[in-house]
Formats: sequence, structure tokens, C-alpha cells
Amino acid sequence: MKHPFFKNHGPFKITDLLKDLKLNNIENLDNNLIIDVKDLQTAHKEHLTFFHSKKYQMYASKTKASYCITLKNLAHFLPNECKPICVDNVLLVISQITSKFYPDAINDHFDSTVKQIEKLNIASKIKFGQNVLVGENVKIGNNCLIGHNTIIEKNVIIGSNCSIGSNVIIKNTIIEDNVSILDGCIIGKKGFGFFPNNQKNLRYPHIGIVFIGENSEIGCGSTIDRGSMSNTVIGKNTYLDNQIHIAHNNKIGNNCIIAGQVGFAGSSVIGNNVIIGGQAGISGHLKIGNNVKIGGGSGVIKDIPANSKVMGYPSKDFRQFLKDNK
Amino acid sequence: MKHPFFKNHGPFKITDLLKDLKLNNIENLDNNLIIDVKDLQTAHKEHLTFFHSKKYQMYASKTKASYCITLKNLAHFLPNECKPICVDNVLLVISQITSKFYPDAINDHFDSTVKQIEKLNIASKIKFGQNVLVGENVKIGNNCLIGHNTIIEKNVIIGSNCSIGSNVIIKNTIIEDNVSILDGCIIGKKGFGFFPNNQKNLRYPHIGIVFIGENSEIGCGSTIDRGSMSNTVIGKNTYLDNQIHIAHNNKIGNNCIIAGQVGFAGSSVIGNNVIIGGQAGISGHLKIGNNVKIGGGSGVIKDIPANSKVMGYPSKDFRQFLKDNK
Amino acid sequence: MKHPFFKNHGPFKITDLLKDLKLNNIENLDNNLIIDVKDLQTAHKEHLTFFHSKKYQMYASKTKASYCITLKNLAHFLPNECKPICVDNVLLVISQITSKFYPDAINDHFDSTVKQIEKLNIASKIKFGQNVLVGENVKIGNNCLIGHNTIIEKNVIIGSNCSIGSNVIIKNTIIEDNVSILDGCIIGKKGFGFFPNNQKNLRYPHIGIVFIGENSEIGCGSTIDRGSMSNTVIGKNTYLDNQIHIAHNNKIGNNCIIAGQVGFAGSSVIGNNVIIGGQAGISGHLKIGNNVKIGGGSGVIKDIPANSKVMGYPSKDFRQFLKDNK
Repeated sequence: MKHPFFKNHGPFKITDLLKDLKLNNIENLDNNLIIDVKDLQTAHKEHLTFFHSKKYQMYASKTKASYCITLKNLAHFLPNECKPICVDNVLLVISQITSKFYPDAINDHFDSTVKQIEKLNIASKIKFGQNVLVGENVKIGNNCLIGHNTIIEKNVIIGSNCSIGSNVIIKNTIIEDNVSILDGCIIGKKGFGFFPNNQKNLRYPHIGIVFIGENSEIGCGSTIDRGSMSNTVIGKNTYLDNQIHIAHNNKIGNNCIIAGQVGFAGSSVIGNNVIIGGQAGISGHLKIGNNVKIGGGSGVIKDIPANSKVMGYPSKDFRQFLKDNK
Repeated sequence: MKHPFFKNHGPFKITDLLKDLKLNNIENLDNNLIIDVKDLQTAHKEHLTFFHSKKYQMYASKTKASYCITLKNLAHFLPNECKPICVDNVLLVISQITSKFYPDAINDHFDSTVKQIEKLNIASKIKFGQNVLVGENVKIGNNCLIGHNTIIEKNVIIGSNCSIGSNVIIKNTIIEDNVSILDGCIIGKKGFGFFPNNQKNLRYPHIGIVFIGENSEIGCGSTIDRGSMSNTVIGKNTYLDNQIHIAHNNKIGNNCIIAGQVGFAGSSVIGNNVIIGGQAGISGHLKIGNNVKIGGGSGVIKDIPANSKVMGYPSKDFRQFLKDNK
Repeated sequence: MKHPFFKNHGPFKITDLLKDLKLNNIENLDNNLIIDVKDLQTAHKEHLTFFHSKKYQMYASKTKASYCITLKNLAHFLPNECKPICVDNVLLVISQITSKFYPDAINDHFDSTVKQIEKLNIASKIKFGQNVLVGENVKIGNNCLIGHNTIIEKNVIIGSNCSIGSNVIIKNTIIEDNVSILDGCIIGKKGFGFFPNNQKNLRYPHIGIVFIGENSEIGCGSTIDRGSMSNTVIGKNTYLDNQIHIAHNNKIGNNCIIAGQVGFAGSSVIGNNVIIGGQAGISGHLKIGNNVKIGGGSGVIKDIPANSKVMGYPSKDFRQFLKDNK
């Protein structure tokens, strides 16, 4: 599938991609074309993927990618059809290669393609405030409302009957029907992802998007960052209160209720019907099951099985928390 | 008293109000008119009120309302003049009825009544920046300053000598004299209140307002939500730092000092001269006495008597906190 | 050195400065002119300084100021050339005197000097969005990008190759080359500093600025307040995530990585290469050494030596935290 938003500057010959990186010990590579960069699960033939932690060995063993950037000690998990390219720093190399395919996904400069909405065809079917700006490659459904000073930057699809507030900024985002985005939200900017480097860090591209399911509501002043290789997802009928921060790659389920000032560090998967109290923090790369309740102020640093109720920093069983703090 | 901001679509016959809700076992109701919906304390004759928790039995026993939505096991607390209407889910029913009286208080779409301030009469007595928008039913006192890109939506009263920053959004709010609202605040939007419902939550109306007392200051990027049935109140000479979140129905006293990123979950009552350190969180429905000091990062989950000093998550006596963490 | 941004309304005769304050027991003062107010370290001849805590005795003993507002029991630490002026409340008196020198640094009203950027000479060498406003005494380097609705208020210097997002407000700030300020930031407003006073608090002037070093990045919706007597500093190549709050006078080193929703209470000094997890809070007046790692959600309330790894509220050694919470 073509990327919906970012222009793919490929294909590139695998030899060309690698020679610019000045890697040692890369040998015996053929001259084949790589058409895209994908994660282990979504990669297909002629795609390049990456595999940097044993944690993902099950996905690695089934990947359909033709090539995989990986570590020497992980290469044997890959299927025969996927040729390993062993390097010392998998994430750095995949970031450099992804930057060649998607150079526009590295920095988030302001969108200079925007026009006053009055000058665009979509103006006829929606209701909008003053000083609304809309960029290229934007689709907006029927009966939407867009508030004053709001900027819908390029690469946004908004469904029908959505209510977007004032002073909102949205980019690289797909929004389904009946969604409310309240005042002052910033949605779809690149995540906080880069390689630390003395003097000048190296930003990596964020080619993921933000996806917001139907009937959801995003509270005032919230920030939702787009994903790096995968997407940031808010499920259907999920309500977020004010000043919430959702970092890149988080997947939040349906019918969740998330109170004010909660923060998600990134790449966690939150189930359906999850309720999270105010100011709680969810660390990165966790799995929170369905129907979990997380008390306000909690710091969640490990997975939580479905149907649990937790509280505390670090979070523990709710009854235990009450008992420990009597 | 007439509601200052939201149009009351009543009166309605009590029978008409209830028959649309398809309630069972509602019987023997007369044909009287209900002119408004109020809480137990402020309700008068010809008002409808609600009573859903034994906690409020003292108020219930003195209410002057003509009708009360309540539970079967609470009805006997009501005075003889107040006719109980017993239902299974008090809050759901009162929300549905309130929605009939105040349909404009359910959703917070952008205000399409705003005009460029230059075109309004009030422009002559205040000093304002560029691109300032002002809605219907707005009053602004003498010598006020209003910054660039700020939107004073409909239903706002601002006293004299106030300084409103840039990129601010205010609606459904009364502000007294000499108040400073710093850049990027969002004040008066509906609270985070709704009935969870699979597929599509049911929002309830927020007919309360935000009230900010004289000489107070609200820091940059703060959000203060208006109340549901009662008001959200910030006292006189109370200073809020940046990025504070005050949810609906909180009442904060006079001369309070609240540091950055503090959050209030809703419906708590905070006394006078209360000092709260940065990032502290105050749970819902609590009573914090006068002169209380709450340390930074604390999580307050129960009432705090006047003149106490607490810290911790959950918060405890400050000396105990220090001792436990030596 | 002349103050780069705030107009100094001095010099004043020392007798004139003090007589307005109605202080008792101020005696034997000559008629000399004071040209500026400075802290102990930066003060020179003909400057007035202040010394209110024994903590600063080493600086006091070496100050070059001609006069010093201090306490009776601290006066003997001062060198002979520095004449002590003993008062009961040092901070209150220095604040009142500073207000006479810098009356424009007390309140942060919107900047009425701004003009549409199209009308200014700098428009020719930078790329900018729609509705950009720029105030007096602003310098912007080559190849900068400035997003839509952004307000560069008076007293800002921006280096070359900077990318400023949309809906940003900046004032009283110096930014070096290659800095990214993402959407919705508010930088350079006065800190949360005032003397509590029943009925009406007394704000003190903030004559410090914000300084942001080259190659740094400030995430969406962050607030960075300018200093009171000294500056707020962000080092080189330091990256801040979204919704971070940096209060006045903090000094943050180079190559730091600070995750979302972190808050700094003020006047702390953070070393180089410090990594801070999401939602952590750093109390005021602390010293955090180089290469320190602070876990997400931590509450740091005392100094941390270099090369440590801490977590918890209050924060403790990381291994101890894990052990205590097994």
C-alpha cells in the first residue's frame, strides 16, 4: 500500500542504500530494488524491515520482507526468504534508510501550503470560523465545524459531523465521523524520537500517522504525536480530558475514559474500556488489558492484565495500595 | 433567577418531561409546570431537583423544590412539599431532563456569533491586539487589555482593569476587576462529564459557569472548565501558575497560591490561603480546609482539615512524610 | 552592561530609593547614585545588590556592589567597600527597588508594538506563515521559518536556521542557531513570583530573560518563564518533549533529554547529559549533576550528584527504588 501522506522517494537499490552509510562487513548483496521500509508484521516482498530485540522474534520468524536490518545474534530467527543485513546499531541504520525514503517526515516545519479556507472548494459543505487555514491533501466530510484560528495542515482526512474547536493544529491525521477535537489541541506532529548525539542529535523520520476513531473526544490543550514506523491510534468512543499527552506509537482502545493531564510515554497498547484517573503516567512499550482501571496519579511501569484495578507509583493492585497506605 | 448565559427552553409540564424518558413505574403525576432544574440547595418552588446520594440528606431534607428525581430508598428524606420521582439512575435522568431545558449547554462547538472587536461598541473603551474576536452577550469593563488572537466567545462578563493575554479563549465566564489571564488559557468550556455508553457516550449539559474573583491571576496554558449543575469558582487574589487544569465544579478560595501543572479532578472545595506545590493532584469531591499547605507532587485523595501541612502520594502529614522517607 | 531588553529608569539616589519605602532605622546614607540592581556575583561599583540567606555568604564576601540590602545578622559577611542597608524583609525591599528601575518588567500585558511581519524589513530574509506578528527590538537570523499565528513580541533575538512553529508566543528571549520551537509554546513570560499579600499580592519584576542554546528543540505546548534577577537557560542540543513547564531562573545544561509533562519549580541548576523521564518534577533551588538519569514520575526534592540514576517520589537510588517496590 502506498503511504497515504508522505511521499516515498524510492525505490532504491539495496547496495546504494547501504553504501552511503559506510557500514563495515556488509557483503554479498545483490542489486535488487527496495520499494519501501516497513515493520516486521506489515512488510512484504521487496520491502526492507528491521529486527532489533529478541522480544519480537515471533514476528521476525514470519516476516515477508526481502531484507532485514538486524543484529548478528538475531539473524537466525529470520525465515530463509528474508536476507539479514547485520549491523551494530539497528535503529540508527533503519532510521538513516527511512530518511532516504521519506525525507519530508523528519522535521515538522510549519506548513506553507495552507490557504484561507474561504478560497477552497471544501468551504461550501462545512461551517467554519475566522482565520481558518487548510493545507494540501486535506479531505473534510459533511457537516463539520471548524473553529477560529484553527490550522488543518496538509495530509489530514476528517470524517463527517466532526466538531473541531478553535486554535487547533492538525496534520498527518485521519479522523473518523462524529469526533470532537476541543480548543487548543495539537495533533499529528512528529514524536519525540531521535538518536542522542553530542553537539547535534539525529532526528529520525516519523512516517506514522495519528488515527482517531469515530465518536471520540479529545480535550482542550492535548497533544497527540504521530507514530515513527507504526501509527498512533485512539479507538472509537474514547474520551480524553484536557492537557493529555499521547506520545508516538501508542494504541488506545475503544470506549476508554482518560482524565486530565494523563501522559503516555509511547508505543504502549491500551485495551478497550480502560479508565485512567488524572495525572497518571503510562510508561513506554507496555500492554494494558481490557477493562483495566488505573487510579489517578499512578505511575504504570509494567503490563497490567485485563480486568485489573491498580493504583500507586509504581502501580500495584488497588486493594493492596489502600492497605499499604492506611 | 434567570440563568445568566444559557437559554432556558422551559417551562415544561412534568408529565411531558418524564414521558419522553420512557421510565417505568412513574405514576400519579399531576400536570404542573416545571420552570427550571436546580440543585437541592438553590431550588425553589416550581423547580425540579435531584438527590442521588445519602451524603446530601441534610440538603435534601430542606429543599424547596416541588419535585425531586431520586432513589426509592432516599425518597423519605425529602420534605412533604417536595414530590419524589423515583428512578433507577438519578444522574442519567436529571441529565436528560436538563438537556431539554438547556440544549445549548451540551456541546461546545466554536462560537459562530463572534465578530472582529473593531466592529463592536466596546472597542472604544478597551485596548486590544490584532485579530481579537468577541461573541454575543459579552460585557467588558473599562481599561481592559485584550491580547492578539484572543477569542472572547459569547456569554462572558469581564470587570475593569483586567489584562487578558494573547491566544486566550474564554466563554461562559464571569471575571471580576483587576484579573490577569495569561497567554494561551482556555476558560469556560464544558467539563469532562458524560455517561459512558458503549459505541457512543451520552454527554450531559454543563449549565454552570466559571467565576474568577478580583485581583486573581491565571497562568499560561491553563484550562478551567465550567460547572455542570453548579459553578467552577476561583476566589479573590488567588494566583495560578502555568499549565494548571481545573475541572468542573471546583470551588477554590481566596488568597490561594497554586504552582505549575497542578490538577483538580472536580467538585472539590478548597479553602482560603491554601498553598499547593507543583504537579500536585486533588481528587474529586474533597474538602480542603483554610491555610492548608500541600507539597509538590502530592496526590490528595481525602479531605484535609484546616491549617494542616501534607505531602506524599497519597498525601499524609508533612512531618510523617519526611520521617518515612529519610 | 546595559540590560538587553528592559529599559533601566535609573540612576536614582540611594536616599531617594529608600525614603519612598518608609523603612525605619535607615541611617547615615550618603547621596550617591545607584545605576543598577544586580545579584551578588554580577554587581559592580555603583550597583545595589541583595543578600538574604547565609547560603550565599561566599558570594556576599566577594561582591563588588557599592550597597547591599541585607539582614542585620548577615551584614558582617560583606566586604568593607559594600555598605549594608539592613531591613526586615530583604526580598520585599529589593523587589520594590527593582520595580523603580524596571517598571516595565512587572506585568506581562500583551505587546502593542507588534506589526504584521509583511510590513517589516526582516520579512525579506525569512519564510513565514499567515498572521505572523513581530514586536519592537526583534532580530531574526537568516533562513528562519516562522509558523502561522505566531507572535514574536518585543525583545527577542533569534539566530539563523531556526524553525518556529505555529501559535507560538515568544518575548524577552535570546535563541541561538538551529533551534526548533514547536507549535503552541509560550516562552519568556514573567515567572510565578510575587509577595503574598492579603487582598492583593505584590508582583515583583522579572528582569531576567530566557536563553536557548543552539541545536535545541522545545516540544509543543511547553512554557518557559524568564528569570527574575538571573536568567532561565536551556543549554545547547537539549531536547524537550511536549507540555513541559520550566519556571523562572532554572539553568538546564547541554545535551539533556527531557520527556513529556516534566516540570521544574524554579532556580535549579541541571548539569549536562541529564535524562529525565515523563512527568517527573524537579523542586526549586536544587543542583542536579552531569549525566544524571531521573526516572519518569519522580519527585526530586534534593540535590543529585553527578552520574547517579534515581527514581521515586521522593526520588532515591534507582536500584533501591526497584528493590523497595518488588
